[in-house]
Amino acid sequence: MAATQMEQLVSLCKRRGFIFQNSDIYGGLQGLYDYGPLGVELKNNIKAAWWRAMVYERDDVEGLDAAIITNRKVLHYSGHEDTFSDPMVDCKKCKGRFRADHIDGKCPNCGSTELTEPRPFNLMLRTQLGPVVNEDAVAYLRPETAQAIFTQFKNVVDATSRKLPFGIAQIGKSFRNEITPKNFIFRVREFEQAELEFFVKPGEDEKWHEIWKQNRIQWWRDQGIESDNLKIYDQQPDELAHYAKACTDIEYKFPWGFDELEGVANRRDYDLGNHTKSQEEFNLEAKCHENHDSTTKLCIRDDDENKWVIPFVIEPSMGIDRGMLAILVEAYNEEDLGNGNSRIVMKIKKHLAPIKVAIVPLKKNSPEIMAKCHELKQKLMKLGIGRVALENTGNIGKAYRRHDEIGTPLCLTVDFETLEQQPESVTLRDRDTMEQIRVNTADLPAYLREYFA
Amino acid sequence: MAATQMEQLVSLCKRRGFIFQNSDIYGGLQGLYDYGPLGVELKNNIKAAWWRAMVYERDDVEGLDAAIITNRKVLHYSGHEDTFSDPMVDCKKCKGRFRADHIDGKCPNCGSTELTEPRPFNLMLRTQLGPVVNEDAVAYLRPETAQAIFTQFKNVVDATSRKLPFGIAQIGKSFRNEITPKNFIFRVREFEQAELEFFVKPGEDEKWHEIWKQNRIQWWRDQGIESDNLKIYDQQPDELAHYAKACTDIEYKFPWGFDELEGVANRRDYDLGNHTKSQEEFNLEAKCHENHDSTTKLCIRDDDENKWVIPFVIEPSMGIDRGMLAILVEAYNEEDLGNGNSRIVMKIKKHLAPIKVAIVPLKKNSPEIMAKCHELKQKLMKLGIGRVALENTGNIGKAYRRHDEIGTPLCLTVDFETLEQQPESVTLRDRDTMEQIRVNTADLPAYLREYFA
Repeated sequence: MAATQMEQLVSLCKRRGFIFQNSDIYGGLQGLYDYGPLGVELKNNIKAAWWRAMVYERDDVEGLDAAIITNRKVLHYSGHEDTFSDPMVDCKKCKGRFRADHIDGKCPNCGSTELTEPRPFNLMLRTQLGPVVNEDAVAYLRPETAQAIFTQFKNVVDATSRKLPFGIAQIGKSFRNEITPKNFIFRVREFEQAELEFFVKPGEDEKWHEIWKQNRIQWWRDQGIESDNLKIYDQQPDELAHYAKACTDIEYKFPWGFDELEGVANRRDYDLGNHTKSQEEFNLEAKCHENHDSTTKLCIRDDDENKWVIPFVIEPSMGIDRGMLAILVEAYNEEDLGNGNSRIVMKIKKHLAPIKVAIVPLKKNSPEIMAKCHELKQKLMKLGIGRVALENTGNIGKAYRRHDEIGTPLCLTVDFETLEQQPESVTLRDRDTMEQIRVNTADLPAYLREYFA
Repeated sequence: MAATQMEQLVSLCKRRGFIFQNSDIYGGLQGLYDYGPLGVELKNNIKAAWWRAMVYERDDVEGLDAAIITNRKVLHYSGHEDTFSDPMVDCKKCKGRFRADHIDGKCPNCGSTELTEPRPFNLMLRTQLGPVVNEDAVAYLRPETAQAIFTQFKNVVDATSRKLPFGIAQIGKSFRNEITPKNFIFRVREFEQAELEFFVKPGEDEKWHEIWKQNRIQWWRDQGIESDNLKIYDQQPDELAHYAKACTDIEYKFPWGFDELEGVANRRDYDLGNHTKSQEEFNLEAKCHENHDSTTKLCIRDDDENKWVIPFVIEPSMGIDRGMLAILVEAYNEEDLGNGNSRIVMKIKKHLAPIKVAIVPLKKNSPEIMAKCHELKQKLMKLGIGRVALENTGNIGKAYRRHDEIGTPLCLTVDFETLEQQPESVTLRDRDTMEQIRVNTADLPAYLREYFA
């Protein structure tokens, strides 16, 4: 996709109701977006596809949905309070503040060269909880969903009697005070993550890292991302975070270049080790923070070895918003139809499409046709395939183009033949091929159930 | 439900993985909870039931999913900065702070009577956004999802060409710095709301208020809440918020008494009026705050009257967490089975049940039976009915009791007859009646699809 097409995509996203700037009427807030009527459906469908693949289709993963506001101790022992930061410099003249790695000796605001030394700027958003405002009341908005998975590890094990290997999956909002939000919904301050922490026996971690790497690449392909547009990058030893043994980035070819969609990391026993009670009882491999506050040993019984172990963790962690952007970029097509005609068509995979079927009346002003449209909508809605829309513009050609542009896989047209001929039938028009077929309404439920299965 | 049963329910919720205390291993944070493997499924099912009823089954509602972090201007003009507060007093001796209406002339901490006069304490959680920490950087965690629906009103209308009446629905987290969180997940500091703002012509508001009131009562019944346990309370004129013309509370009989599940309010033109540009052009009925910052007229064309109007708003607003608690309380049953036997059975409606079907092997150590269980799980999972669990305890009686306790509607047992007789069949055991029937595996998809439709 070219950069000009990116601009058109951003424009389409607002115009058709995928994505709006947050608090638009007050000039917005940098790095915050709202998902409109189509955006909320697409995002929910992406989340459902991930949850289905991670939880429902497996026998070894449990779900979790933890609070966003996070106890300061959690983010102290996780290491975020001390190290989750970007280097910043202040301009002594205009008092502007900038990321040290984004400027070149001069203030980008006033041009002054009187700059402070770089200082770490913590990326976590703070708030204060409870009636008294002081340092004891400080809590954070979580910078990642993962930490609650670690702190609730023992509760989940106790509730489910899980044995290794098994995972805990979570989808939810995270927050980072990015200094320079950019690239639309790619780098934002409030975003949604889908994270799996998969717990394995030490020694089996490399095998599982490879399994999850392959699994996640395949998942992105299943969401419609072409292999050619994915790049798999194994981080080099000197690039790895200090706690990681390995990390694979799954990158997508965005209009501005390849950029990260997901990371698959081998975090060893770093996280559970940081949060566990009685660290000395476990032969921890990662260099953990000393912890005298935790009340719980975050270990699990290894029946083969007949001992309690702190498992290693493989973490596939994806960004939902940037995933959605990749899916939109990938789906966006401008097609030349010949004779000077063209169309924009969003070839979103049908399981992700915001609207599954648009019901289109041949004539808007015919009460009989409209009544049949309403009847069919009620019937189709009951199939549980997702959102079915009644398109009542009354102009078939325009309705098809509108739904091409937002990725609706099927348009169902009710015409006079529907009303007059037996057996009753409708036209189904395919978004990608633009071909139309006639289907008996009696066969519609089975046809659509199969089509969207 | 008696108070002792409430204690047992809270205990069951932790033991079986519905609800955990947040950051449990560090002593928790007051008013914050995490949803475990079963809780996340139940909560997602409640959200899906609401979305389906509000968006998919109607022709007049659009969805939205806006950011949690909210521009200060939005909450200034909405009135929250000035008035969203509880009265607090400080103890001059021990410096404790308490809700004025919760104490009786003496500090509950040290007994001193030297207290300050009550002062308003704003319930919104603040944070600061961007690299510089100052008052300009202040933003709030939204105290309700509704405000983004109002500020995005025009963007949604432009994207969808909606005419009155129509609504915008949203589900998401909201935050309130409650002074005294209590009653488990009933009054918490981080919670999930499902809110619909339904826009109507002025003059049609009373009719629509009544329609939504009836609609929402029916929805709660559809989720399994008995009419006897619901109380509908129409607020008296002197109880109404200043902007409301009417408000109906839907209350549930919790163990501590009737308490609010949902409010259905007639907010008139207060909210859109507060946020609109050019307020003087509209004949606003509600007393709105003067607004010189908004860039947009939040109006819609009334073709009948041939003019631009700011619609009235009917708002059904429910709490997902307290709704979930009501559903759990309602579902919890201790049944006497005679002969000194009893069981706990959670009679959750099947569309809400966290696990839809538990596949139970008659014998855990039979590879043939386990292989058949895995095969059936794959088959059932593809039906899209929700979570199907493989229960591999190997003790059928215990498996049935476990799944009664967490509300699994069906247990499917694979036994030797399954392997040896043709046509292949399994046992289905009903949670509520405990009756068992034999079903051919070839008929299972149709049977289960119908059962969970």
